[in-house]
Amino acid sequence: MAFDRLIERIAEMQNPTVAGLDPKLEYVPESIRSKAFSQYGRTLDGAASAILEFNRKIIDALCDIVPAVKPQCAYYEMYGWQGMKALHDTVAYAKSKGMFVITDGKRNDIGSTMAAYAAAHLGETDVCGKKFSAFGADALTVNGYLGSDGIQPLLDVCREQNKGIFVLVKTSNPSSDELQDQAFEGGELLYEAMGRFCEEWGASLPGKYGYSGVGAVVGATFPAQLAELRNSMAHAFFLVPGYGTQGGSAESVAPAFGKNGCGAVVNASRSILCAWKAQNDSQENFAECARREAISMRDSIIKQVGKISLEKV
Amino acid sequence: MAFDRLIERIAEMQNPTVAGLDPKLEYVPESIRSKAFSQYGRTLDGAASAILEFNRKIIDALCDIVPAVKPQCAYYEMYGWQGMKALHDTVAYAKSKGMFVITDGKRNDIGSTMAAYAAAHLGETDVCGKKFSAFGADALTVNGYLGSDGIQPLLDVCREQNKGIFVLVKTSNPSSDELQDQAFEGGELLYEAMGRFCEEWGASLPGKYGYSGVGAVVGATFPAQLAELRNSMAHAFFLVPGYGTQGGSAESVAPAFGKNGCGAVVNASRSILCAWKAQNDSQENFAECARREAISMRDSIIKQVGKISLEKV
Repeated sequence: MAFDRLIERIAEMQNPTVAGLDPKLEYVPESIRSKAFSQYGRTLDGAASAILEFNRKIIDALCDIVPAVKPQCAYYEMYGWQGMKALHDTVAYAKSKGMFVITDGKRNDIGSTMAAYAAAHLGETDVCGKKFSAFGADALTVNGYLGSDGIQPLLDVCREQNKGIFVLVKTSNPSSDELQDQAFEGGELLYEAMGRFCEEWGASLPGKYGYSGVGAVVGATFPAQLAELRNSMAHAFFLVPGYGTQGGSAESVAPAFGKNGCGAVVNASRSILCAWKAQNDSQENFAECARREAISMRDSIIKQVGKISLEKV
Repeated sequence: MAFDRLIERIAEMQNPTVAGLDPKLEYVPESIRSKAFSQYGRTLDGAASAILEFNRKIIDALCDIVPAVKPQCAYYEMYGWQGMKALHDTVAYAKSKGMFVITDGKRNDIGSTMAAYAAAHLGETDVCGKKFSAFGADALTVNGYLGSDGIQPLLDVCREQNKGIFVLVKTSNPSSDELQDQAFEGGELLYEAMGRFCEEWGASLPGKYGYSGVGAVVGATFPAQLAELRNSMAHAFFLVPGYGTQGGSAESVAPAFGKNGCGAVVNASRSILCAWKAQNDSQENFAECARREAISMRDSIIKQVGKISLEKV
């Protein structure tokens, strides 16, 4: 299964983190922007070219120490189809450097429409008998509000293509309690019910380290829920957003990990991409600063979770 | 507000329907496909060119009698950035023909990430001071599982740009009951809670016909829930999927409409795009067949709901 490869990379690098590639144009230093604008003009093409070059430098700086990247679709889509081309090229570049790629699209729909999203991001698109990988990620974040009809088409593609999904369970934002923390009759909370469904959906995609192809997004900002869900979702690998700028710390993400230091990958985006600010360095040195911050994040988390082993949970 | 313009077009045409542009390549007749493939090869570019040409012919056939189109993102995304360019060009073409465009993306995220989706589909993208409309729809479907943090950034763009959103409330698929129909302590169902939030979110975006800028997606396949939500969500304009191939009929969508025949727009995709099949006609005549089916759908629904007036509810 897809998460076996992620888990192996995490253990090899002793680093359970993922770098979020949310490349706002203001994060891109002047030198890269002006080069792109001189070639393509101050246009969507120019912006897309600049963020792709920024991403390449981040990937170059991190690929030997960070196992995975997580491009956030919204920051590519906002630059139109030109931005989506930059997403494609970013995924391809990260994979060429050996990185595991999680596309953060939070996609959701049903039946053949969900199958189209699955083909787009994880599988292959058939053009009258010829197959193409449209975006080509290793895993995709999805939203399960529509129930099993929206997840089943993904499971088929995950099985065939050795890919994985992360279902939104308990998100990191303050208002996630408005719906997710509400109790159903009988006492189960909505996010707990979503977690229970994830375990059911994942049962058909077992992995060799005990984690299925159906993971869960659980925010770093709610350590108590992380601990509870770690217990109730024994087979779900966790994608943990909210570290760094959103307030999550190494201590607050520790409950996401199992006894062998495995079971989760922690995302940081802005604190990595804009590390030059916290380090009082020049924006032009963003890549070296990002690497320093990635090392510091890795060391802080490993200090909390201990050595990561590949023992089956 | 954005839905005022949709409502005015619906009343003018006496047609509360929207044509779903879900252009699977198998729906596109051989003549269009072979022309595109001879120009671009059997590639993602070729597929994207074919679906764009197909969409143009559907839009030409419908634009004087159908007020709106609803392109489904997944069927463009599956053809990569080339497909996303076809989405952009489809939206632009439909708007040039005066149609109201609802992009069905079911997007969801929080804060500045949701703001990026809002910019992509409804607002403008800033490239160092120059503004671009990346995809340029009039309305976007969204998923509210993340709570108010995921909706607020959209409301700001809707207010500034005169656009609207449709929040998934009760979807048309069989498994929508797994989560959406579950009762919270106190008895409110999840979809009812989502509906209540929609009314709250919409309060800041009032429209001149009584409907706010925050609409709701409610499936045609559940008439009892349609009737109940029509009562509890007085200010939400409804987007009703599931008509035709999914099993919804003119009778089953009737409860979505208020006393003046207003309050909802009913979507049909496959039954329009593939009308040539039901009409035992040639695939090459897909556009005329689509027009005949659109007229028949309009007449069936109008027979149920009566004359549509612009009286405020």
